[in-house]
This record gives sequence, C-alpha cells and structure tokens, in this order.
Amino acid sequence: MDLYGYFRSSASYRVRIGLNLKGLSYDYHPVNLLKGDQHGEHYRKLNPHGLLPTLNDGDTSLTQSLAILEWLDETHPEPALLPKGAEARAYIRALAQSIASDIQPLQNLRVLKYLVSEFKITEEQKILWIQQWIHIGFAALEKQLKPTPFAAGDTPGLFECCLLPQVYNAERFGVDMNQYPKIQTMAATCNELSAFIEAHPQSQPDSTV
Amino acid sequence: MDLYGYFRSSASYRVRIGLNLKGLSYDYHPVNLLKGDQHGEHYRKLNPHGLLPTLNDGDTSLTQSLAILEWLDETHPEPALLPKGAEARAYIRALAQSIASDIQPLQNLRVLKYLVSEFKITEEQKILWIQQWIHIGFAALEKQLKPTPFAAGDTPGLFECCLLPQVYNAERFGVDMNQYPKIQTMAATCNELSAFIEAHPQSQPDSTV
Repeated sequence: MDLYGYFRSSASYRVRIGLNLKGLSYDYHPVNLLKGDQHGEHYRKLNPHGLLPTLNDGDTSLTQSLAILEWLDETHPEPALLPKGAEARAYIRALAQSIASDIQPLQNLRVLKYLVSEFKITEEQKILWIQQWIHIGFAALEKQLKPTPFAAGDTPGLFECCLLPQVYNAERFGVDMNQYPKIQTMAATCNELSAFIEAHPQSQPDSTV
Repeated sequence: MDLYGYFRSSASYRVRIGLNLKGLSYDYHPVNLLKGDQHGEHYRKLNPHGLLPTLNDGDTSLTQSLAILEWLDETHPEPALLPKGAEARAYIRALAQSIASDIQPLQNLRVLKYLVSEFKITEEQKILWIQQWIHIGFAALEKQLKPTPFAAGDTPGLFECCLLPQVYNAERFGVDMNQYPKIQTMAATCNELSAFIEAHPQSQPDSTV
C-alpha cells in the first residue's frame, strides 16, 4: 500500500495509526502541505479535494481518513477497529466523528490561512479560535467516555485513531489537558504502544520538528 | 423512534432522509437552535455536545448523523444506504465525509456566531466564507461523481443523505449551482422522491419559512 500524507496532518496520522494497529506495512509518500504539494497536478489526480491522506492499494485509491479506516476494517478484519454490535459501533463512530467533523475541520491549514488572509486575525486570535473548538469538543467527549482503558474496551480502535492526533494538536496549541483526565489517561496509554509511537508526527521521515 | 432535530440543521435533515429511505416512522422533537434549546439541561443530558440530531430508539441513544445513518444500515439493512463491496462503500463514505467534515462544519451556526462576535466579520464576509468552502468542496465532488442517477448507482443512499442538505444550504447562501451540473441533476432527481420531499426543512413542523 502507498500512503500519501504529511507528518502533522491529523487525518494522515489517523490512518497511520490504523495501518499500524492492523499490522499492515506501507510506503509513505510525504506531501508537503506548507509548500502546496497538495495542489500539484500529480496529487490532484489522486485526490481532487487536494486534502490528505490518500491510500492506494493496487488499483484501489481511497480518500477521507474515516472512510479509509472503515475500509481497512472491512478488508482486514483483525484486529478490529470497531467493536461488535450496532449500538457499540454507533457509539465509537459518534465519538470519532465528534473529532473529525466538529473539532478538527476548524483548525485545518486552509481554514486558518483564510482567517488570517481574509479576516486579518492576529496570531493570538488564531490560537484562541483553535483552543475554543478543542475545549468545547473535549469537554463533551470527557462526559461521554467510559472509564475503560480504551473507548471500546480493552483494545484501541477507530476512536483512538482520531483522538491521538487531536490531543497532539491540543498540546501543540497550548490547551491545558489537565481538565480532561479521561482523555489524558487514554492518550498516555496509547502513546506507550508501538502502533501509536510509530505513527507519531515526530517519527515520520518528513518531520521538521 | 424519537428524533431530536431542527428544520434547518443539515445533520438533522440527513437523518430524516435516512429514516424516510428506510421507511421508518419516528416522532420529531424540534430543538430550536436559534433560541438555544440545544444548551438546555434536558437536551444536554441526551447529547453533551449540544449538537443535533439525537436519535433515541428505546434505551439506545445515538448522536452524530453519519454514525446514526451507519447504525440504521446495520439494524435495518433494506433498502441499503451503502452499496456492497468494500471499495464501493469506501467511495460513498469518502464522498459523504467530504461534506460532513470539509464543507458543513465551517457553516455551523456556532462557528458563524463566533466569526461575527470575535472577529467582527460583516454579513458579506460571512456569506463569502460560506460560499468559499461550498465551492471548493463541490468542485472536487463534481470531479469525483460518476454519471449515474445516484452516487452508488440506481438508488439514493448515504451520500445523497448528506448532499441534499448541503445543496439546500448552497442555494440558501446564493451559490451558483449551474457550475456543478452533476450535483445539480442528482439533487433534482432526489427532490422528486417522497423520502427527500418529506425530509425537506420546509416540510418540518418547526419550519419558519
């Protein structure tokens, strides 16, 4: 498989975790978001949205991190990213989508660029904007999470694929994570596992930090 | 089943379409977003995020529109909202998530309110912001869609549940849809079907238009 991603892209990080949890190897192709590689003709042919990641498996080309993770779970069922039972699956998908639809989109690079260029917001306003949506989302997630090591029980899966990149961003933008002890503990537990360590932005060949 | 929604909420509209496509009846409970009902103690107990919709089925309480639609497809398989085959499913989920994660979150009511109150943007800037993200997303979707009546073939499903609310918003905010003939045709075809007509914001008891 070939994964087109960027070390700091949340959605790329989610898919790296998923591939690692499944024990699947892949070739990593960095697409430098800051240099605009995502708008280049080569990448746009793969993904007309110019967004990361894209996962290619032979002739199959997949986009959108959650769609890719669901595909991984359907094509490589073990270990499962989603629990058994429709209600348990809906709970995990809802938690994941709270991050993927309500928190992360508001700190997407192109969105932040627009706020700065069109609305002339300051660096401080930008940080407050990012923190605001993380706080609102994490406060609600903290209420929804059950006191198990992982959201679905004993093993990490779809939700943790989304959570860790969001916690990484939260820390990067100065969010006080002590307000969210369940999230903090879950993230720390994940960060001791090789699937998460190897997917971390700092472990990627295109990392600049 | 009990659906807590708001006539104009995109995510509520998506679930109404899904329930109608499945032929499932439900009691509709309006939550007035403009009056702040979503922040009330009663609703927050159902959904700590204070977002719409919530679907209750007996003791099962579900949030996040895409998680609810996947749950509907798992618990009431026919007619299917997702096609058969992992690759086809990934394609439909990716299209749906392009709307749910890349377009819609940026025009969420609480986001627009923040832009106005904190960044003091004008009404014109607000409209341009909304149009910008719809144009970027629709231009890419237009390239990805195949020339079939619906995205997955002969029947509407998960993608159309997301598309129609987004087209409704696009028209509401003055986006010229003639630039997107495939989307426009697909939406017009859907809007002739009772599942979509009955789910339309204007058909809801809480509609103010």
